[in-house]
Amino acid sequence: MNQSELKEIIYQALQEDLGFGDLSSAIFPEGHLSSGTFLAKANGTLAGLDIIIQTYRLLDDNIKITLAKQDGDVVTSGDVIAKAEGPTRALLSGERVVLNFVQHLSGIATATRKAVNALNSDHTRVCDTRKTLPGLRMLQKYAVRCGGGYNHRYRLDDGIMIKDNHIKAAGSIAKAVEKAKSQHGLMVKVEVETETKEQVLEAIEAGADIIMLDNRPPEEVKQLVTLIPEHIISEASGDITLETIGSYRETGVDYISMGSLTHSVNALDISFNLDT
Amino acid sequence: MNQSELKEIIYQALQEDLGFGDLSSAIFPEGHLSSGTFLAKANGTLAGLDIIIQTYRLLDDNIKITLAKQDGDVVTSGDVIAKAEGPTRALLSGERVVLNFVQHLSGIATATRKAVNALNSDHTRVCDTRKTLPGLRMLQKYAVRCGGGYNHRYRLDDGIMIKDNHIKAAGSIAKAVEKAKSQHGLMVKVEVETETKEQVLEAIEAGADIIMLDNRPPEEVKQLVTLIPEHIISEASGDITLETIGSYRETGVDYISMGSLTHSVNALDISFNLDT
Amino acid sequence: MNQSELKEIIYQALQEDLGFGDLSSAIFPEGHLSSGTFLAKANGTLAGLDIIIQTYRLLDDNIKITLAKQDGDVVTSGDVIAKAEGPTRALLSGERVVLNFVQHLSGIATATRKAVNALNSDHTRVCDTRKTLPGLRMLQKYAVRCGGGYNHRYRLDDGIMIKDNHIKAAGSIAKAVEKAKSQHGLMVKVEVETETKEQVLEAIEAGADIIMLDNRPPEEVKQLVTLIPEHIISEASGDITLETIGSYRETGVDYISMGSLTHSVNALDISFNLDT
Amino acid sequence: MNQSELKEIIYQALQEDLGFGDLSSAIFPEGHLSSGTFLAKANGTLAGLDIIIQTYRLLDDNIKITLAKQDGDVVTSGDVIAKAEGPTRALLSGERVVLNFVQHLSGIATATRKAVNALNSDHTRVCDTRKTLPGLRMLQKYAVRCGGGYNHRYRLDDGIMIKDNHIKAAGSIAKAVEKAKSQHGLMVKVEVETETKEQVLEAIEAGADIIMLDNRPPEEVKQLVTLIPEHIISEASGDITLETIGSYRETGVDYISMGSLTHSVNALDISFNLDT
Amino acid sequence: MNQSELKEIIYQALQEDLGFGDLSSAIFPEGHLSSGTFLAKANGTLAGLDIIIQTYRLLDDNIKITLAKQDGDVVTSGDVIAKAEGPTRALLSGERVVLNFVQHLSGIATATRKAVNALNSDHTRVCDTRKTLPGLRMLQKYAVRCGGGYNHRYRLDDGIMIKDNHIKAAGSIAKAVEKAKSQHGLMVKVEVETETKEQVLEAIEAGADIIMLDNRPPEEVKQLVTLIPEHIISEASGDITLETIGSYRETGVDYISMGSLTHSVNALDISFNLDT
Amino acid sequence: MNQSELKEIIYQALQEDLGFGDLSSAIFPEGHLSSGTFLAKANGTLAGLDIIIQTYRLLDDNIKITLAKQDGDVVTSGDVIAKAEGPTRALLSGERVVLNFVQHLSGIATATRKAVNALNSDHTRVCDTRKTLPGLRMLQKYAVRCGGGYNHRYRLDDGIMIKDNHIKAAGSIAKAVEKAKSQHGLMVKVEVETETKEQVLEAIEAGADIIMLDNRPPEEVKQLVTLIPEHIISEASGDITLETIGSYRETGVDYISMGSLTHSVNALDISFNLDT
Repeated sequence: MNQSELKEIIYQALQEDLGFGDLSSAIFPEGHLSSGTFLAKANGTLAGLDIIIQTYRLLDDNIKITLAKQDGDVVTSGDVIAKAEGPTRALLSGERVVLNFVQHLSGIATATRKAVNALNSDHTRVCDTRKTLPGLRMLQKYAVRCGGGYNHRYRLDDGIMIKDNHIKAAGSIAKAVEKAKSQHGLMVKVEVETETKEQVLEAIEAGADIIMLDNRPPEEVKQLVTLIPEHIISEASGDITLETIGSYRETGVDYISMGSLTHSVNALDISFNLDT
Repeated sequence: MNQSELKEIIYQALQEDLGFGDLSSAIFPEGHLSSGTFLAKANGTLAGLDIIIQTYRLLDDNIKITLAKQDGDVVTSGDVIAKAEGPTRALLSGERVVLNFVQHLSGIATATRKAVNALNSDHTRVCDTRKTLPGLRMLQKYAVRCGGGYNHRYRLDDGIMIKDNHIKAAGSIAKAVEKAKSQHGLMVKVEVETETKEQVLEAIEAGADIIMLDNRPPEEVKQLVTLIPEHIISEASGDITLETIGSYRETGVDYISMGSLTHSVNALDISFNLDT
Repeated sequence: MNQSELKEIIYQALQEDLGFGDLSSAIFPEGHLSSGTFLAKANGTLAGLDIIIQTYRLLDDNIKITLAKQDGDVVTSGDVIAKAEGPTRALLSGERVVLNFVQHLSGIATATRKAVNALNSDHTRVCDTRKTLPGLRMLQKYAVRCGGGYNHRYRLDDGIMIKDNHIKAAGSIAKAVEKAKSQHGLMVKVEVETETKEQVLEAIEAGADIIMLDNRPPEEVKQLVTLIPEHIISEASGDITLETIGSYRETGVDYISMGSLTHSVNALDISFNLDT
Repeated sequence: MNQSELKEIIYQALQEDLGFGDLSSAIFPEGHLSSGTFLAKANGTLAGLDIIIQTYRLLDDNIKITLAKQDGDVVTSGDVIAKAEGPTRALLSGERVVLNFVQHLSGIATATRKAVNALNSDHTRVCDTRKTLPGLRMLQKYAVRCGGGYNHRYRLDDGIMIKDNHIKAAGSIAKAVEKAKSQHGLMVKVEVETETKEQVLEAIEAGADIIMLDNRPPEEVKQLVTLIPEHIISEASGDITLETIGSYRETGVDYISMGSLTHSVNALDISFNLDT
Repeated sequence: MNQSELKEIIYQALQEDLGFGDLSSAIFPEGHLSSGTFLAKANGTLAGLDIIIQTYRLLDDNIKITLAKQDGDVVTSGDVIAKAEGPTRALLSGERVVLNFVQHLSGIATATRKAVNALNSDHTRVCDTRKTLPGLRMLQKYAVRCGGGYNHRYRLDDGIMIKDNHIKAAGSIAKAVEKAKSQHGLMVKVEVETETKEQVLEAIEAGADIIMLDNRPPEEVKQLVTLIPEHIISEASGDITLETIGSYRETGVDYISMGSLTHSVNALDISFNLDT
Repeated sequence: MNQSELKEIIYQALQEDLGFGDLSSAIFPEGHLSSGTFLAKANGTLAGLDIIIQTYRLLDDNIKITLAKQDGDVVTSGDVIAKAEGPTRALLSGERVVLNFVQHLSGIATATRKAVNALNSDHTRVCDTRKTLPGLRMLQKYAVRCGGGYNHRYRLDDGIMIKDNHIKAAGSIAKAVEKAKSQHGLMVKVEVETETKEQVLEAIEAGADIIMLDNRPPEEVKQLVTLIPEHIISEASGDITLETIGSYRETGVDYISMGSLTHSVNALDISFNLDT
């Protein structure tokens, strides 16, 4: 992960929350010290713990964070995640920003880990999409990796997807892929979204690097995958959920992408309490 | 809402997604035109429709958006939300950013509307918290309003909350509130988080403007509210969900705050399809 | 105060003054060392001394600042404020930016302290307004506090003021307040600007949290304040100066706001001289 | 003036004041229209009127501003400066930012005009210094020009000033100037700060382009100026005020610089009132 | 190309050149109008003409640009590239920034076009590298496309290159590629830099998507290419110049990358002259 | 040089290259350490070595850089420039950005040094122009100084140049200079571009501070220089190259400006290799 970008994102989050400064923690004198604990309040998989350290470093150099867990660790409700000690003002001013990040990212890692476990496949990988929350994509995609998932495209410039809308506007899969291949360089892959056997064959013929099988039930995915040569990657997509992903276990598809991993996230409950 | 800030947020989201540019839509010539439709794929409440207009304006002045709905409208799956027409390149390049915003914000408005309906009270208002996603607070809080909710603090500088951790570090509610009142100006309210009758009475005595009843069951909230003078606002908080909010209907509390409205959002499903 | 924002403001000020670099101090070799003194050249109250430290930290880690005073201290012409030692280049490159900040902020603290002293009241507080210089509001409001004053609104989103123009456009105080109260959340106060007894009574009736008495002479303020219930805050405003503020001592008003504290500031004279 | 920079400064000022949005003007429906007038409430010289137009353009395209005056115009209390009409929300949201800019800049222009008039010289010009308010230098220096003054250095990279501190650290005027001349290019002038006849002669000998006479009374300035060859510019500086500047009328010095023009500004009183 | 990013780059370039404003063109009154011509002063291939339009739009809406050529066009010395008319101030203020961009980008397009012509191959494509000038990569890579070339990686996150240094640190090509494949998602290609037949075979075995033949003479490239299966892309690299590229015509390699296209650019001479 | 600005430029360059992070170096575990060497691969003059230190400091505090050379040093192919040791990930992630900067700047210093040597004059100085690459001007002008050259204007606000186009639009040199002198302050020089003896005399008469002789052959420059009084600086300009600059040795002109120093730069070849 780009550490400079991470620091910039944290800086912006602090600015958003602090405004002209924290009126509440200003009731403590500058030298007032406390210690506290970040605690899991639910079971899940952690992601983004470095943000605890980085956020407090931006607020006050004198805060010391001791991590008891690391990204990707599975926690049970009640587990200690990290200890913090230092100036009370900064400990309390940073609490909410830290939790907003870590609860969200751990929610993503938790859902991904559940999906990977439910799929339970040596071959098929779970991956994300571009259905991310604005401004948080780098972090969300990192959290997917913490949960055992893989990343699809980062953005519109690092891969080509010929989707339904592109095929409509271009006239055919063949035309769209040909045009793409005539323009792009050696590092760019072309993926084609398909819904029928005919489209799959057309995409293969056109030279697609990846073929996405959109909104197909497991049995159909299994059949279509047999049509796809080994050097072409297959991906199943379309409202596959934690409940249904297990049914794709035997399809042989290479990747299953899940938009919900990043667009509909349940925060993992984590608390911060000062020691008495 | 601050329109300049909205434009800046959209600009950053486009930069995040576009990088050096959209390789896929580059397969269309510059003058290629299309039209398409934003369609609700689920029932819910809309928020953020202006983002459709603003995003496309940033991408290409020649795109024309016609809104069929407005923020706060309740939609049924299949309802047309907006029509778009103009250069195919920009229509497709902006689709994902638009949907990432509008699906998320409409998800918040939908959950808020459900909470307001489940509460079904003339007196008690539903409000949000600072448990928002970094960088998206202004928009998330706007979406809460679109769903019929109210906003709690915007940030750490526009109100004082004396929470559990502050009370611990300050020694008592009385000390914390006294210090706060000696420092802040005329426009700032002081809210105190309480868990017992004793704390409620101490907060009243200390001159709190708002008293939060943290993690109390409905019957206890009802009792505690009777202790609070009319000119002090009461708020119930702590894991109140869509399932349980109805049980607070008769408590007489002024506000019920729900962190889940913004920290655990299910996107409202919306699609964009080019017309054939 | 938000320390990240402070650093950003100092950074921008240095960029504004340095451009591609200081041509004059470039006449010294990199290793050339000096020491110097920041000296008060007039009597006043100090504010912003941390900026001396932060500015030089941005320019060169090797500069050591020793503060002889702290914010809020009253100084007499000739008093040493701070000592600086380190690379001559950076000492001279940062001098002007440091002085531009500290002279301005100390000018504000000085005027505020004078106003507080002239008012000489146990009850009535002096406060600022939004009549600040663009980009400097956080610092200016901090300086007011250093001088013993209090802060009014930080910005347009953390409180509601129904002013003359709002009343005109809304039709009446009652309509404006009612609308405001139906929209805003629990943390927001509503202040109403009034000029007559009738308006004061209308504002009370409408449920205003604060009533501002605009441009009223002391004796009228005193009378109007008697109409206002204890739980509503009163504020006197309108061209009250260092010369006239004393005449409001017996009015019983809660706050007196003075735009001149921040819009018409006389810099406190401070010099920086290298030791020979 | 750099128009892009002007827009950026206004944008930042609006962000500072608006935060998440103006709660007060939100009481008006979006389509509510008003008109209003910017009126001089004191006598003075105007500067920064374009900011009225640019600020409102950023807030709402539908606002129409009609300027009745232009920068540099002398106004009398009661004069109409500009008319504004359009959406009430934006008219009121922008009022304070507009006034904060225009009152400050007109205050500078007014003081400069007074200084120029008090000096009343065909030969000697009034100029500013780098004693400006952080972030506002470009605008403040523009305002000085609106008042009939001239600009000294813009920043540390566009001219060399060998001041008291530089001379101390370098050892002598001669050494400092020689070093400067060996490093800088053809477009850079070197000014030397002097306090005695000996220093003036040393500066001339060293090849200074400009000689500053620091803190010298009028009669001494007059004598020292006679020593300075015509191709070298002379400047008098050091606490010269509106009260004392007239006494320099006959000195023959080329420039008189006044720090107070920009570091101690009295805002020119201007009001904005909605038409009833 | 990302148009928002283009505008941001132009904005920054204008800020860099304008500072507080153009002192020279300020000698013309605001309403003074002129027209002028951008003229090729050498033979070459054009790139970046849209920057003429965008730059002047930022400076002054009233300037009208008429392009006589478009990106990718081959010009001869003396050809008119564009006509400009509007306010003299802005025409002259923007001239240098426009030329700095367009001369540089056209220099890149010109060199690329020469390389493509010298190679004169139906099969082998010319491409760029990451050896670009900081801040200008998007534009430089666009200019390569204008000259008939293709783009290699945009940045470190959109493709994997296992280079000499990576192989050293990882221990072997096999280990490096295996690790890369276990971490990256479906859209990412892996390229391996090789210098020997053994390395080429190891890279094939490891599953490389692209094999780079580093610093190999044409005859060796030709032999190594025969070892590489069709579904793996081959690239020749390493100080291949306009003088030597022709000798690779018969090698059958898929891509030839040239760092000099972007790291050692000769500006194409273009002038701007006002019409008399 | 402005160190804050340098850090900002490096930060932006890293962001441009890193995106969401370096996929290739991610194959190494976090604690993996290496050391490596920056080596000159050609003869030349160095500039920008501090960028090696600053770039790696931004990436990872644990990297230690030892410089073997300093800016302005002449190197021979094979010379060690710097040693680096620390985490392998960061060493490889930063390599390209470092080289892109240092190779470019050293290319400029090398060309400048060659020009100074070819000119071989005690009197005449070599200087740059505003024909720089957008975003890199401060660094490019610094590199010119490292090669023994001098800087012309930094930007449009720190000096006035009356060029061909200005003279056309203003009507005459006299009118243009007079207008400029009536507007600008004491620190600003006025340069006039001339092509004939008549223009030179007109510029002298008008009071120009610098006279540029545009596109004149050496013998003509020599003659025209004799017309120019000593207190006015002379500059020869216009396609003077490394090949022709020597012929200007005896002209007596003060400055020779060369646009090619910054607009057409050949990178100095430098490599970075990990130690085995």
